[in-house]
Amino acid sequence: MKALINLVSIDDAIERLAMALDKTIVLDVEELTILNSVNRILAEDIYAEIDRPEVDVTAVDGYAVRSIDTVGASQYNPLELSIVGVLKPGQKPLEKCLDPGTAIRVHTGAPIPCGADAVVMDEDISISKDHLVIYKPVPQGLNIIRRGEDFARGDLLAHKGSVIKPSIIAALTASGISRVRVYRKINVSVLAVGDELVEPGEEHVEGKTYNSTAYIVYSLLQRDGLFDVNYVGIVPDDSRELEEAVAREISKGADLVITTGGTGVSESDVVYYLIKRGEQVFRGVRMRPGRPTSSFIYGNKLIMCLSGFPVAAWTGYEVLLRRAIMKWLNIRGFERRVVNALLTRRIPNTVGYSSVIRVKVHLDKGVYFAEPYMLRGSGVISSLLRTNGYVIIPESVEGYEKNTPVQVYLYD
Amino acid sequence: MKALINLVSIDDAIERLAMALDKTIVLDVEELTILNSVNRILAEDIYAEIDRPEVDVTAVDGYAVRSIDTVGASQYNPLELSIVGVLKPGQKPLEKCLDPGTAIRVHTGAPIPCGADAVVMDEDISISKDHLVIYKPVPQGLNIIRRGEDFARGDLLAHKGSVIKPSIIAALTASGISRVRVYRKINVSVLAVGDELVEPGEEHVEGKTYNSTAYIVYSLLQRDGLFDVNYVGIVPDDSRELEEAVAREISKGADLVITTGGTGVSESDVVYYLIKRGEQVFRGVRMRPGRPTSSFIYGNKLIMCLSGFPVAAWTGYEVLLRRAIMKWLNIRGFERRVVNALLTRRIPNTVGYSSVIRVKVHLDKGVYFAEPYMLRGSGVISSLLRTNGYVIIPESVEGYEKNTPVQVYLYD
Repeated sequence: MKALINLVSIDDAIERLAMALDKTIVLDVEELTILNSVNRILAEDIYAEIDRPEVDVTAVDGYAVRSIDTVGASQYNPLELSIVGVLKPGQKPLEKCLDPGTAIRVHTGAPIPCGADAVVMDEDISISKDHLVIYKPVPQGLNIIRRGEDFARGDLLAHKGSVIKPSIIAALTASGISRVRVYRKINVSVLAVGDELVEPGEEHVEGKTYNSTAYIVYSLLQRDGLFDVNYVGIVPDDSRELEEAVAREISKGADLVITTGGTGVSESDVVYYLIKRGEQVFRGVRMRPGRPTSSFIYGNKLIMCLSGFPVAAWTGYEVLLRRAIMKWLNIRGFERRVVNALLTRRIPNTVGYSSVIRVKVHLDKGVYFAEPYMLRGSGVISSLLRTNGYVIIPESVEGYEKNTPVQVYLYD
Repeated sequence: MKALINLVSIDDAIERLAMALDKTIVLDVEELTILNSVNRILAEDIYAEIDRPEVDVTAVDGYAVRSIDTVGASQYNPLELSIVGVLKPGQKPLEKCLDPGTAIRVHTGAPIPCGADAVVMDEDISISKDHLVIYKPVPQGLNIIRRGEDFARGDLLAHKGSVIKPSIIAALTASGISRVRVYRKINVSVLAVGDELVEPGEEHVEGKTYNSTAYIVYSLLQRDGLFDVNYVGIVPDDSRELEEAVAREISKGADLVITTGGTGVSESDVVYYLIKRGEQVFRGVRMRPGRPTSSFIYGNKLIMCLSGFPVAAWTGYEVLLRRAIMKWLNIRGFERRVVNALLTRRIPNTVGYSSVIRVKVHLDKGVYFAEPYMLRGSGVISSLLRTNGYVIIPESVEGYEKNTPVQVYLYD
């Protein structure tokens, strides 16, 4: 058995991957209509082109008044104002300013007429014939949204690198923007390596394993939305066939090729022969599961070699490649949520390696608990089904005791 | 002004919507290949068709041994076993059982040969010539994953109603399943109502507002992945034109029509005229923002009328329609994450209404804080950009004081 030597740390692997991605992928920008841009990555900073609102408007349904007219109003001394009209959103403000002693009906979003400087809500008044009855003074500015208060012309609405979410769509369209420049999707080919594999749907053969690892990777990529993913199929444990398959994907336009399996440290490590023919990014990571995760540049393209074991491949994508892509494109809004939780039992670690421990987080009386699941067995799929987060134990730490507060990265 | 009467509670609105969805939409099932099923909703329970693993296998790289052979081993009394071969994943177990005093090299996932009952890891042994040197007794069963331990034939792998995530893809493919039955997507048409609206990209006209609300709803639907969404465009404040537009979408196959705007309680409420021609589900909700949210059945289809104000429409989708769809299809894995957080300041509520308050959650020294944002102004888009969760204050509560622990629903 050949040992993996010169393993890199998780941070180092991410750093090297980000640099290799930058070196190997030219990520052109494409212009899309806003409706087609959901979940894509913005390739430009976007600034507001108008003030919003464009004039002072009312935040509520009510009556626009001159606050000075309401001074001294109380339950015992109600004041009356005569109602002189109605304004709706999108209407132009009146030509004439509001006269002393008058009020005007305004619907939420309507412009504030000149002279008025506050809006009193329906629940704070009563109506007597065509008069408004006020029971307390209305402070200046009450319920008015000032011109440009939501955003002002020139405000940065969205950063380059932002995932285009509904809130960004809202801001862009409200500013009149209908087209955006986004990064094109990254073309990824996923192939499974291993004589022992058969495809799901094929007949079951004793001793063979259904290929699931490449499907996990495919679906992780698909869900993350940044990729056009092509599933290639199973390549046998044969270094020449593997090289041909990788070269074929590159010639067909793959920006990135991901392999699962064939990364063992044993004699049968077919990926190793391919790595030797390329420029090594790293070979092996001080991380468990996922230690054999490797990466190299071949034919000017990045090849990411994930373990053949489901959970180890999941870790290689989640902890390494996904974070490297975020770093490379400086993506905002793609990071996992983090909660602080107390461990329900001790989790050990081998010093010199980081452990990626899957946990089930639950909330009990306002406190989060993280229950580590199935510490052994990177092939154990049920551990993915039954967990909703992961904890990383750093290389230098001998494990965490029960009740230690830990950061949990949540995924679904 | 006509007041909204008979407003329903949030829970009642969700319940009525779920019933109306069930009554109006026949959601056929389609069969997809597993690669095309990511993020779709499973329409059947799925059970494992095989045991995984199919035989006892090793969870680690190491040596399979007979535990009885290791009794009495210690640093002072190391025991030697002769290494008789190597087993890799996918290989058949040896014909012959492991002889006393022997061990066999096993790579993670390899079958445990008959006779062996434990696996000792590489870091716990040393190798002397072709002998394995053991320094402590190896407990029976160590590092062995038992047949069916991950999942056993007949185990429920995924519930009907589950969102198909990578972990489910993993379990299904590992069980040999390549095709799944999922609900077809729901066809939704979104249309904006309002004379005051212009489309983003069109020239800016004073007093007009860029349509952003329908785009938010479109992108929320798009992101949630359950829908085929069709953006129809702007319909003027004219009840006949609106009715024609709705009827046209239904005739073109919409399962559900969502309108934004035109829901005011004022004389110009064009949606109201349409509601009167259909069967009312509810008209108005005791919820702020989003109070005018209404729903009715027209031409046997559900029409969901959201506010024209961005945040109010967002609330109508997020708090009402989205939850109703989850309830209708009993969807698992679609609910928002919840964190417990302390309010950074008081939030008031008008008793008799539920308030949906957008907050920015941040973590400080292990404690979550929720900062309420812009309590007023359902048109204020920047409040969506700057928040990452929401709190619901129940109808019966007069508000929450500063430092009250609240449940925050996180969204992105």
